[in-house]
Amino acid sequence: MPDNDPLHRAATAPGVSRYGRIAAQLQRKIVAGEWLPGAAIPAENTLAAEFGMALGTIRQAIAVLVQEGLLERVQGKGTFVRNGLTGASMMRFFRFRADAGAPGSLATGTEPGLAIPRSEILSCRAARLDQGMAALFGLGAGARGLAISRRRWLDDKPRLLESIWLPLPRCEPLQRLPKAEWGDLLYPLLGSQCGITIHRAEDEVTFRTLDTDEAGLLELPDGHPCALVTRRAYDLQGHCAEYRLTRGDAYAFRYQADIR
Amino acid sequence: MPDNDPLHRAATAPGVSRYGRIAAQLQRKIVAGEWLPGAAIPAENTLAAEFGMALGTIRQAIAVLVQEGLLERVQGKGTFVRNGLTGASMMRFFRFRADAGAPGSLATGTEPGLAIPRSEILSCRAARLDQGMAALFGLGAGARGLAISRRRWLDDKPRLLESIWLPLPRCEPLQRLPKAEWGDLLYPLLGSQCGITIHRAEDEVTFRTLDTDEAGLLELPDGHPCALVTRRAYDLQGHCAEYRLTRGDAYAFRYQADIR
Repeated sequence: MPDNDPLHRAATAPGVSRYGRIAAQLQRKIVAGEWLPGAAIPAENTLAAEFGMALGTIRQAIAVLVQEGLLERVQGKGTFVRNGLTGASMMRFFRFRADAGAPGSLATGTEPGLAIPRSEILSCRAARLDQGMAALFGLGAGARGLAISRRRWLDDKPRLLESIWLPLPRCEPLQRLPKAEWGDLLYPLLGSQCGITIHRAEDEVTFRTLDTDEAGLLELPDGHPCALVTRRAYDLQGHCAEYRLTRGDAYAFRYQADIR
Repeated sequence: MPDNDPLHRAATAPGVSRYGRIAAQLQRKIVAGEWLPGAAIPAENTLAAEFGMALGTIRQAIAVLVQEGLLERVQGKGTFVRNGLTGASMMRFFRFRADAGAPGSLATGTEPGLAIPRSEILSCRAARLDQGMAALFGLGAGARGLAISRRRWLDDKPRLLESIWLPLPRCEPLQRLPKAEWGDLLYPLLGSQCGITIHRAEDEVTFRTLDTDEAGLLELPDGHPCALVTRRAYDLQGHCAEYRLTRGDAYAFRYQADIR
């Protein structure tokens, strides 16, 4: 597969900077589990001694991994390996609760509630991936994946409908997992069952209308406008490990973005 | 008005850090025009001498302003005062051109074209602001503002409809400006005519349907779904200097967000 991961490029490209090579080596410690999520990494001068590099080079390498979202600095405490995404963040696109302000109103400045919606697995089956999806996962033609249909509930109402594709055989353990054991969040499950840490996701939002099946499952009228969030989620190595389509009522969509 | 600007708080709150106070003083140099947009700021040790502070304190203060988006570091070149927003960025929410991929398709990875749509001023008049809008601008009850209606064209089609409110008397020069002299971008005009540099904006996206007037102006059917972008734009001091509602065809909406 084409590897768009800047760290991978940094580690392999000729003429790459010294700190880029160190960054790639530090990343391997995270990927290999030598440095665990949530744990502090060794002191900068310890690393400088280990790699035989100047302190400034180590600091630049760490800055790259902070930029990449693999490490985070905590003021006065040190540098830590970031925990993976929890997956709850799809809710940042929607505001379903009754206390939501009217769209365009001046009054609101509060964040939408990031409650975790209850998950209902509608189906989970292995299937052949189409060519684009296989390529996205770094797999060849004819590769198989897990196709999951999931409905998410909040306040006893169906709110989101999700179609999730996962690569096989990486995600094989999920195929045999009883529906009752899935829980509400996918990413912790990918961690515990498949050893995959999702650390970054790209979401793209577009709009369309619900088809009859989707509308029925969401208890909305046929042809109702919906927000469609297309997600590609990536593991620590920068490989795509999930493709997800999420549909929800367009009129519940609310998203805030800052530009500088 | 309630001042939510962290730098303002940093400069006035009791017990604030030394670097926070320095950051506020550096910000005043930018606001006062002593340091101009696009220009390099003095060397860190020059500033350390000027303020009688340790180099580390100056660096922390600069880091605060980089974080705030007022300064930017350019690798190997120095630290520069950032130019204000140009205002063209509303286009990042839409993809109007014929070459846009189908929503949810795997194929696209390209950025939407950031072409500047042609602007047509439909009306511009002074009016009393409602209480919420006046408070947003830091003005008292009964304050007046400029209410502007603008239509934006791309590929000879009307694409966006904008309602813009600006505070008076700050923006008085625009009231007398002939429509032909507005140009396509508002923020450069706010700079040249009113001395206002927009350096940050908060956009909120929701969805609704077009009313009859809006639909007519956008040449879309009455009741057609639209994306509504609500913008609050802020000047260098952190004061709100623009409130804008932008409507565009929901089916042309396309927005990408990364999560880490």
